[in-house]
Amino acid sequence: MSKAQWIWYFGDYELYHSLKLHSRREEFGFEYPPFWSMKTPYPTVSFEKEYRSEKADIVRVVSRHKAYFEVDGVRHPVNADVEIPAGEHKVVVNTIAVSGLPSIYINSEYLVTDDTWTANNNTVGSSLPVGTWEVYDSPDSDPEEFPFLYETKTPVKSTKVSEGILYDFGREMYGIIRIEGVSPDANLRVIYGESPEEAIDPENALIRETVTGKDCYALAPRAFRYVCVGSDGKEPRSVTADYEYLPLEDKASFTCSRRIIKDIWDTCAYTLHLNSREFFLDGIKRDRWCWSGDAYQSFMANNYLFFDPEITKRTILALLGKPPYEQNVNTITDYSMLLIIGTYEYYYATGDKKFLESCYPRLRGLYEFMNGRTDAKGYICQVDGDWIFIDWADMDKGGPICAEQILFWKCRNSLADIADVVGAAKDAKRYRNEADDLRRSIMRDYWREERGVFVDCHTTGRENVTRHANIFAVLFGFVAERRARRILRTVMTDETVPPITTPYFTFFELCALCKSGKLTAAQKKIESYWGGMISLGATSIWEKFDPRAEWTGHLEMYGMKYGCSLCHAWGGGPIYLLGRYCLGVYPTSVGYKTYAVEPSLGLYRHIEGTVPLPDGGSVTVCMDREKCTVLSDRRGGVLRLKGKEYKIPKGRKVTVKL
Amino acid sequence: MSKAQWIWYFGDYELYHSLKLHSRREEFGFEYPPFWSMKTPYPTVSFEKEYRSEKADIVRVVSRHKAYFEVDGVRHPVNADVEIPAGEHKVVVNTIAVSGLPSIYINSEYLVTDDTWTANNNTVGSSLPVGTWEVYDSPDSDPEEFPFLYETKTPVKSTKVSEGILYDFGREMYGIIRIEGVSPDANLRVIYGESPEEAIDPENALIRETVTGKDCYALAPRAFRYVCVGSDGKEPRSVTADYEYLPLEDKASFTCSRRIIKDIWDTCAYTLHLNSREFFLDGIKRDRWCWSGDAYQSFMANNYLFFDPEITKRTILALLGKPPYEQNVNTITDYSMLLIIGTYEYYYATGDKKFLESCYPRLRGLYEFMNGRTDAKGYICQVDGDWIFIDWADMDKGGPICAEQILFWKCRNSLADIADVVGAAKDAKRYRNEADDLRRSIMRDYWREERGVFVDCHTTGRENVTRHANIFAVLFGFVAERRARRILRTVMTDETVPPITTPYFTFFELCALCKSGKLTAAQKKIESYWGGMISLGATSIWEKFDPRAEWTGHLEMYGMKYGCSLCHAWGGGPIYLLGRYCLGVYPTSVGYKTYAVEPSLGLYRHIEGTVPLPDGGSVTVCMDREKCTVLSDRRGGVLRLKGKEYKIPKGRKVTVKL
Repeated sequence: MSKAQWIWYFGDYELYHSLKLHSRREEFGFEYPPFWSMKTPYPTVSFEKEYRSEKADIVRVVSRHKAYFEVDGVRHPVNADVEIPAGEHKVVVNTIAVSGLPSIYINSEYLVTDDTWTANNNTVGSSLPVGTWEVYDSPDSDPEEFPFLYETKTPVKSTKVSEGILYDFGREMYGIIRIEGVSPDANLRVIYGESPEEAIDPENALIRETVTGKDCYALAPRAFRYVCVGSDGKEPRSVTADYEYLPLEDKASFTCSRRIIKDIWDTCAYTLHLNSREFFLDGIKRDRWCWSGDAYQSFMANNYLFFDPEITKRTILALLGKPPYEQNVNTITDYSMLLIIGTYEYYYATGDKKFLESCYPRLRGLYEFMNGRTDAKGYICQVDGDWIFIDWADMDKGGPICAEQILFWKCRNSLADIADVVGAAKDAKRYRNEADDLRRSIMRDYWREERGVFVDCHTTGRENVTRHANIFAVLFGFVAERRARRILRTVMTDETVPPITTPYFTFFELCALCKSGKLTAAQKKIESYWGGMISLGATSIWEKFDPRAEWTGHLEMYGMKYGCSLCHAWGGGPIYLLGRYCLGVYPTSVGYKTYAVEPSLGLYRHIEGTVPLPDGGSVTVCMDREKCTVLSDRRGGVLRLKGKEYKIPKGRKVTVKL
Repeated sequence: MSKAQWIWYFGDYELYHSLKLHSRREEFGFEYPPFWSMKTPYPTVSFEKEYRSEKADIVRVVSRHKAYFEVDGVRHPVNADVEIPAGEHKVVVNTIAVSGLPSIYINSEYLVTDDTWTANNNTVGSSLPVGTWEVYDSPDSDPEEFPFLYETKTPVKSTKVSEGILYDFGREMYGIIRIEGVSPDANLRVIYGESPEEAIDPENALIRETVTGKDCYALAPRAFRYVCVGSDGKEPRSVTADYEYLPLEDKASFTCSRRIIKDIWDTCAYTLHLNSREFFLDGIKRDRWCWSGDAYQSFMANNYLFFDPEITKRTILALLGKPPYEQNVNTITDYSMLLIIGTYEYYYATGDKKFLESCYPRLRGLYEFMNGRTDAKGYICQVDGDWIFIDWADMDKGGPICAEQILFWKCRNSLADIADVVGAAKDAKRYRNEADDLRRSIMRDYWREERGVFVDCHTTGRENVTRHANIFAVLFGFVAERRARRILRTVMTDETVPPITTPYFTFFELCALCKSGKLTAAQKKIESYWGGMISLGATSIWEKFDPRAEWTGHLEMYGMKYGCSLCHAWGGGPIYLLGRYCLGVYPTSVGYKTYAVEPSLGLYRHIEGTVPLPDGGSVTVCMDREKCTVLSDRRGGVLRLKGKEYKIPKGRKVTVKL
């Protein structure tokens, strides 16, 4: 029998913690709820299980919400010992929660709460395997509290400034500021900053708080590197931080002949750590929200750093919400699509069919919502309340835009793949037909064979070309190799086409370049762009970076002096790029049943690194111009070098001379 | 400008209090959540208003949940003073609540929260006029607390019994038991009883609690007339009750030549009071839940006792829930139908078009759910998770049953009427066509012209006849007068057809009899059935009554020794029957714009009584065999007597000699 764990209705843990998370944003002294609609856990949940006991057994259902415990049709109280005779039993725990997350825990000899239970919301057809997480494994643990760990950090430096004392914690951080040894009479003003400038600018700093009345304080968890504490009384005896984090293990590493790359890689890894919390956040300071487009990129990096399926699943469930579907994810149409695409990619990396089965009705619900918002020609267009984002970039949005349609094509195919996995063959056929129809329309309306480009929009006559649609076409295999090679020439390496300016889309661009064999282009960009931030002292990767900007220019964004997040998850892209295209590790069938290692030095003289594999495994690659060595603890690998393939035996090094 | 009130998203107050209410059931020492699915308030709500201020004004948004206050696009904190200059403004308050009910309060010179605001859940198309209730009129009042009042009651008698001391509060009651002057060491066992037998039977009493550790207690509000307190220490110094109630005003009265009728009427009124709480409950002791079929009858009695639109609206909203519609109301198909029918009847009595407009999308959602569950012939049949109830009675349920189809016909017509009111003419036409199609099918399949009856079921060949379908056919005007008269003879007054045994359906039967001119049959039943309980000492009307039963037989039900509720809302039927058919008051157009007074003595020598009218009005009728006097404070009335009509002038008595 497995270890007892708290159980809840599938997905409701994520909705509950998403609500908590999204209620924490603050800005210039006011609270800042999101502008999209959020969902709650089901308040009424019935947990069910059939089992057999060899002997009479005492069973106690632990529940913090109102509930009864029904054994073979007879009701008993919860939080009390109930004797159950030996034999076959059907047990039901019916709960109601006015607030919070209905969840229960049983740990008896023959009956424990674990993932073999099902739960329903008292409607027919809602029965699903329960949600659970092994960290909640005792009657005292509480699924309404997220299992963060804490570590005390002291400032590396403190400086007297006109605003008070400026504490520097040495690197970007997220945690609880503790202030001790002050007078209850004193008014303390605490200003948080990712930069020292921000921490001493009470007018423009995004996060600040004034407290009084106590002799010590533990403030709400927030992001900072610098904190300035000003007091109208005596100075605090001590200011420390409880660093708040989720203990995700780095299972990867990367070094190469260029020293800066290790710094970049480590900083990317730290940036991902800070943003890997209840869910993948976009950034830890300003909005602290969960955005599907950012999360999609984090899913990719996750597989090359932690390979933690839990955080990807939690993020998918938080973003996916539950019926009714009346809005796109984060209100953004492309983000709904990326969520469906990312969910299939999660499956492809992990082989987690059970997750797809439980999610499928919701994915379909989200898809149908989008599908009900196409124009007469079947294109996704802007309908009331939708945000057609793609990127912060000038684009001809005078009609349905090409990048959105290509993404929709990919989304339909991903949903078809998902439908196939869960045995919904009829659905799969429909989605695939819809994808094929859309592909034909896109090629007819947006593709310019003579120029070898996709235009943004086909209805305005402007024939404007941006990189976005063309990058998606290459990245998602919308065009076959010959046309992809043409696009590489006509758009992706054509400097007259306006460059991508956001790190978000730069990641897609670099993926498409790597996919097209242009690893060196990605390596150059990593060094100039990511390396540029590092050389300016960044301890985590920023939301945006323009090498030509002044220092204050790096800090400002969205019209706010310190609006730019200096710790943004999408900066973690090199983790994926270097693991996927430099070390060259990728699955060639579902769940890494088979996988390839296809390393490539590109600009580097030698590379050495480890990439995680499912189930705690890993593969280590070491390569220079003379030879390549691979060691993996998982079966099914094949080393691909210069058109040749070498089987990678489990647990034994394979070395190939070059 | 109107008085400032707390505001919330339409219907969410009701969902929140419904969740609280439905989490309070307990039985034999365990908690007892409902077996249906419940809904929560939206956690993210934006409140909006455009207004004009003559001068600069300080505005403070009071919110107990996280929120910001946006004025003309600029965000400010809540719970803080914000100066707004003179001029035209658009204000938005965007809130998020991890639990509870998002709601806000503003009371400034030019801006107050009232029913002119709208709220949305951050999705397009969700904007509705806000919900509000004038009792929440100060910044300190809290819409998460229901505004009950309390009154101290002392027992009229206390008796030493082997279980402790039995306190008799003299009549059925709902409230907080306070026990004072006990030792913290003592274990106190408190047993609640609607009968003395129950209060001294710790094994079988439904509600009981054991407490220890304090010298005084205030227990959770519960129903009782008797309370037995047993202690292993000294006796309590005092046991009292805080009677918990909603201050609804009795606006009606009824007396007649038979003394017992006044007792019956008063007891019915008290029974309704006790069950009129957050919503109309079915009964106050056992399940304390809100059931649509019971509530439908309470709506009818409400209009003849309190004429309080608020409790009817609250009950409709709590039962109606919100999308997605995946289940019938209380899981019962006929209860979904009665909710739609009752909602139109609420409108007909009050003229409250605004309420219909806000409800309409939900009513349609509920209807579409039912409509998706018909068989190939278009009949409502039993589908997984549905409960085809109609009544606790033997009926041929071998196929779709007639009573359910007739109710569905009525439901379709009611929804068509609602659609017409809200301007959805196309919907109305569709629903009406669907009703007409159904009517033709029912007449073809269930009507037996030769026998003059509707049979229960047309697929089993049993040709069984019960009263239920026939009563609905008469009551809801499914058959025209000639056939209704036939049914009266062939079914309703035919003693070979099995009698109705539940008070629930007895009410429909009496309504149908009165409608068919058989007031005396109703009067006889009121005296024998309701009078029978009174003569046994009932202080409130019971869930069921069989005059032939022993005393203990009155108490038991559902296989439990004290399972019968001795205070059941559906017992309030005589309030409606006597007001509607004896005093004869009823609207003849929407909102009592016109109304009739058509009194009838039936068995009584004289009658005298008052019936409430909308907007606090009332009409008083006094009649004996010689003359009839009517006084009304509302225009539009007409007195109908012996085929003649007399205008009822506002505020002036009209007397007609007979």
